[in-house]
Amino acid sequence: MKPVAVRNIQRADSNAIGTFAALGVSTVHEALGRSGLMKPYMRPIYPGAQIAGPAVTVLAQPGDNWMIHVAVELCQKGDVLVVGCTADNTDGMFGELLATALVARGVIGLIIDAGCRDVKPLKEMGFPVWSKAISAKGTVKSTLGAVNIPVVCAGVNVEPGDVVVADDDGVVIIPKKLAVETAAKAQQRKDDEDGKRTRLASGELSLDMYKMREGLAKAGLRYVDKPEDV
Amino acid sequence: MKPVAVRNIQRADSNAIGTFAALGVSTVHEALGRSGLMKPYMRPIYPGAQIAGPAVTVLAQPGDNWMIHVAVELCQKGDVLVVGCTADNTDGMFGELLATALVARGVIGLIIDAGCRDVKPLKEMGFPVWSKAISAKGTVKSTLGAVNIPVVCAGVNVEPGDVVVADDDGVVIIPKKLAVETAAKAQQRKDDEDGKRTRLASGELSLDMYKMREGLAKAGLRYVDKPEDV
Amino acid sequence: MKPVAVRNIQRADSNAIGTFAALGVSTVHEALGRSGLMKPYMRPIYPGAQIAGPAVTVLAQPGDNWMIHVAVELCQKGDVLVVGCTADNTDGMFGELLATALVARGVIGLIIDAGCRDVKPLKEMGFPVWSKAISAKGTVKSTLGAVNIPVVCAGVNVEPGDVVVADDDGVVIIPKKLAVETAAKAQQRKDDEDGKRTRLASGELSLDMYKMREGLAKAGLRYVDKPEDV
Amino acid sequence: MKPVAVRNIQRADSNAIGTFAALGVSTVHEALGRSGLMKPYMRPIYPGAQIAGPAVTVLAQPGDNWMIHVAVELCQKGDVLVVGCTADNTDGMFGELLATALVARGVIGLIIDAGCRDVKPLKEMGFPVWSKAISAKGTVKSTLGAVNIPVVCAGVNVEPGDVVVADDDGVVIIPKKLAVETAAKAQQRKDDEDGKRTRLASGELSLDMYKMREGLAKAGLRYVDKPEDV
Amino acid sequence: MKPVAVRNIQRADSNAIGTFAALGVSTVHEALGRSGLMKPYMRPIYPGAQIAGPAVTVLAQPGDNWMIHVAVELCQKGDVLVVGCTADNTDGMFGELLATALVARGVIGLIIDAGCRDVKPLKEMGFPVWSKAISAKGTVKSTLGAVNIPVVCAGVNVEPGDVVVADDDGVVIIPKKLAVETAAKAQQRKDDEDGKRTRLASGELSLDMYKMREGLAKAGLRYVDKPEDV
Amino acid sequence: MKPVAVRNIQRADSNAIGTFAALGVSTVHEALGRSGLMKPYMRPIYPGAQIAGPAVTVLAQPGDNWMIHVAVELCQKGDVLVVGCTADNTDGMFGELLATALVARGVIGLIIDAGCRDVKPLKEMGFPVWSKAISAKGTVKSTLGAVNIPVVCAGVNVEPGDVVVADDDGVVIIPKKLAVETAAKAQQRKDDEDGKRTRLASGELSLDMYKMREGLAKAGLRYVDKPEDV
Repeated sequence: MKPVAVRNIQRADSNAIGTFAALGVSTVHEALGRSGLMKPYMRPIYPGAQIAGPAVTVLAQPGDNWMIHVAVELCQKGDVLVVGCTADNTDGMFGELLATALVARGVIGLIIDAGCRDVKPLKEMGFPVWSKAISAKGTVKSTLGAVNIPVVCAGVNVEPGDVVVADDDGVVIIPKKLAVETAAKAQQRKDDEDGKRTRLASGELSLDMYKMREGLAKAGLRYVDKPEDV
Repeated sequence: MKPVAVRNIQRADSNAIGTFAALGVSTVHEALGRSGLMKPYMRPIYPGAQIAGPAVTVLAQPGDNWMIHVAVELCQKGDVLVVGCTADNTDGMFGELLATALVARGVIGLIIDAGCRDVKPLKEMGFPVWSKAISAKGTVKSTLGAVNIPVVCAGVNVEPGDVVVADDDGVVIIPKKLAVETAAKAQQRKDDEDGKRTRLASGELSLDMYKMREGLAKAGLRYVDKPEDV
Repeated sequence: MKPVAVRNIQRADSNAIGTFAALGVSTVHEALGRSGLMKPYMRPIYPGAQIAGPAVTVLAQPGDNWMIHVAVELCQKGDVLVVGCTADNTDGMFGELLATALVARGVIGLIIDAGCRDVKPLKEMGFPVWSKAISAKGTVKSTLGAVNIPVVCAGVNVEPGDVVVADDDGVVIIPKKLAVETAAKAQQRKDDEDGKRTRLASGELSLDMYKMREGLAKAGLRYVDKPEDV
Repeated sequence: MKPVAVRNIQRADSNAIGTFAALGVSTVHEALGRSGLMKPYMRPIYPGAQIAGPAVTVLAQPGDNWMIHVAVELCQKGDVLVVGCTADNTDGMFGELLATALVARGVIGLIIDAGCRDVKPLKEMGFPVWSKAISAKGTVKSTLGAVNIPVVCAGVNVEPGDVVVADDDGVVIIPKKLAVETAAKAQQRKDDEDGKRTRLASGELSLDMYKMREGLAKAGLRYVDKPEDV
Repeated sequence: MKPVAVRNIQRADSNAIGTFAALGVSTVHEALGRSGLMKPYMRPIYPGAQIAGPAVTVLAQPGDNWMIHVAVELCQKGDVLVVGCTADNTDGMFGELLATALVARGVIGLIIDAGCRDVKPLKEMGFPVWSKAISAKGTVKSTLGAVNIPVVCAGVNVEPGDVVVADDDGVVIIPKKLAVETAAKAQQRKDDEDGKRTRLASGELSLDMYKMREGLAKAGLRYVDKPEDV
Repeated sequence: MKPVAVRNIQRADSNAIGTFAALGVSTVHEALGRSGLMKPYMRPIYPGAQIAGPAVTVLAQPGDNWMIHVAVELCQKGDVLVVGCTADNTDGMFGELLATALVARGVIGLIIDAGCRDVKPLKEMGFPVWSKAISAKGTVKSTLGAVNIPVVCAGVNVEPGDVVVADDDGVVIIPKKLAVETAAKAQQRKDDEDGKRTRLASGELSLDMYKMREGLAKAGLRYVDKPEDV
């Protein structure tokens, strides 16, 4: 890792980002071929937020938030900050003051593979954070990392400018060159699901709707009437 | 494991189920002799729901929700679906569409030893889920499991038709043949606790109410006045 | 460990406690030199509570809440009960009845390195608990522990009378002899942060406010314009 | 759970047990249709042992080994003791003295969903244990459990007399009524694998041996020559 | 926490230490009343070592081994270094070079609530380490901690000069003022166990040796002949 | 993720690989600027192996080893297979038969962010594996992944052809374009350490050797003679 901060990055298509923001994580993750999802330990610090935006990436040392300070001035309106660490860490590397600085730049949320603190003020400010832990543990500013290089965050490789989508179901990353194509697939999927929901609500069985009965029989599923018949 | 789906199961007594629904997990678990409780990693996806109903059981392969689709048509009004897996898994094996199908059958909740997604719509629908994780990870439909055979879910063996009770404290299973007897004990316990609560609220000490002082002295507890006297 | 209960303990300065209650965990933890914080697995059973008070300490055997009953009559108005265990445990060692007894004594909250149950009634009563787990698992009353001796709880050594501060960010312990000095530092820190927040909200960069640019350059941070220049 | 000890149980077929002992866990688990495997946190306290025998089952309270003492006289030569707990626990519920007693009865190993201690003497005695943890934490003898009832151990339901197979790969349980049939399948699988091993060792590809190429192509796998062609 | 290094500490009685070294962790832990045991995640980096010695204590920042360097010259022949951290950490804070320095001072082992690296050379040197993790992750030397103050390590409060006993079963701490008394109890316990082992090996049941049958009957244990009688 | 297998990849410099094989993980990780290390849950299935080689990468679905079969024919003599998964998994996706096939191709080891089985035969064959878990759980061959695309494995992004170094301390990845430069730095570091080891073994203090005393004093470390002076 080289200690470097990249000033200018290419951000993903903004129309695609708008589509992702409306559709949410589960739909987008499916549209991307079931990849790009961060590990499920990444949870929102309060429920209900749903965001999408291009990633500004930070590689931080555990327990050291120096590079987050560096990242602030490299953010633009609508960006999402994504912080990965060089080793597992749950310290509270982010809190109210940094959030205040990010809000002043127009940043709409934070994804951090470490801890977050000041949960109550962050909720009151309406600044959403997805983190690995909640912890008041203070951090130092002593070792360099990097800004806007590719980082692994919660099991996913994130390139600067990739799209981050986050809601109550978790966090998914869409590579920026796949953003437009994935947005179209995700919208299509959403439209399909609307129709299916109506049919299922009326009592139609998914076994019939998806025509699964033949496949189940071929795979060898056997129906019996009573437990004793197993 | 044989790939089989059992159509008809015997469900526990419905009056007992009504009693359990009113009393909640902690009281029922005590009445059952402190057994039958699922591991505490099973958490509700939103707080406040309290349910009781007979179990329709599913044994699923990790990351594969095919058998949940099979289970839907075997459910009746008031049932609770219980899903165990053949290996540890946190994938989002259940979401809004399956919930829509279950609601159409009158199912009142889901217990799944894996992940759940679509948390926000499920909360809006009022369909409660207790799960091991929240994850958007999509699943396949490729390997058979079974429906309505005994399954181990979060450390508890569940037979089809056993009673599931779930609330903010967790999930407990009552074997169907013990349901009536346990419901009576649970109600008795509840009535006892109401009296105790009143006495404690008025300042009576549990040491006196439960007559613990003699036992403590016999076991060797020593009171001293100051830290230096230890 | 000797099975002993200490009747009288020295409690930390009450003015300092008042200051801590107003400032919360993250600020106090920083003022204490970033020490005294319990592990981040200690979470509130419901969000929003913020308390501070002197610790009455309990050393309990796992799955055995006998000593919590012993502790009740040794508590005073404003105290916080702190329970450590001799081995890892998630059983529901505390619930509504014990909370009722503690409220009758004026106790304002519980910190327990084990499980808690009756989450819904505790929330309705407004009795806050920070615990390692939520679990309905019932406990026995069969083996002695101790009350008001030093206990390790979630990684922190707690002496009777030390100050407990707890909120949505976690739990921190302030040794009673450092309480007054730490309260002054914490208040100073709070006042400083108010000024910083205003400056950051107006768009000033923390890089400039904290004069970090020189240190970053000296440590070797290099700015480049484009990813290709890395 | 009723506090009961069952004196006489039906044990699985001894020829089948002999076959399982020779083949080991992975082969047997496959022959059983990939079920019955305990969670992978169950590890041998020393490497190299491989055993098979009928289960004598114990349901114990966490941190309480009273029922293991009860179980000793109900064991026969060749048995394997299987201990489940009513709640998660890592205490050292088993050590050298109990092992000495079991060896005197001819018991050949222990499976315990909790902790084990005296690791060095147990290794010197050659008494193999598969456990969740190694811990010196002492236990009490104060609350009843049961012996020779069905117990859930590390995620698997074990009936008394079922076959336990354990080696460096983990622990698998074969229901006693499936023992003979599964032993035959396992032996067949072993013989098949011997032939496959020879072919693979000579350089034949599994893609060809298992005729996977067509399936891969049908599923959509695309081969490209260089990374740039992806 | 004050950044301080204490030069001279009082070490526990050396005869007691000799006794502990011969008896090992499980016996000593029982003699201490089943307290003082570190959490079971503390494991030896290689099996077979058994040590006892007075603790020189270090409080380190996570990922920072500066204070271990400070501690070296404060160690004497026969000491055991005990390192606690201010937050959870698995970085490799200790390796071959530091071990070489400690061996030159006569230090006989290390207990560290973090990671260790250079496992193979440490094993070849015969320098035993009990750690939370094995990790090559390098560390910095930038933030102060303290040496020879009380530290919490793996859940136990350790005062400088307390006795550390460690073997394959884990790590236990004996407060120095209880060392002599505990050594006597531990030796007595060892002598008792030798007699019991002989009786158990000859086939006597622990139920009879410990006269448990009456207690079991009184507690309500019921013996039945067959599973159907439960 | 596109279901693709890349036939030809560029492998890192073979002289650098030879240097890495001799030096081991901890030294190489430091030389790379303390980055590239996989999470410490990646452990060897038996101790003592030390390898280095270019990565052939596999992205697999959890519990599905189809793509490992695809990867075999794309391996060359000296390669190391690296398997990442699209979701957390501990199933035994690799065993003796696949190892036999890899050995026939000259592959020298496996890194898998999932489970491994057949531990005893693998040890006898001398085929080293670093894995997240040991598990006999069998896998299916039903869903496509990819071969020789970038994969995240245990928290590190691995490009095909990057260097894998693994030993008892863990696993580190060196990007292929940094291999030559890093090998030189690592050798230099090794030579430096040899000199330091000699000095430390002779009793020189690292405080003096690294000239840390001034820095410690400047940071505020205070030495006191007795605990009472703190």
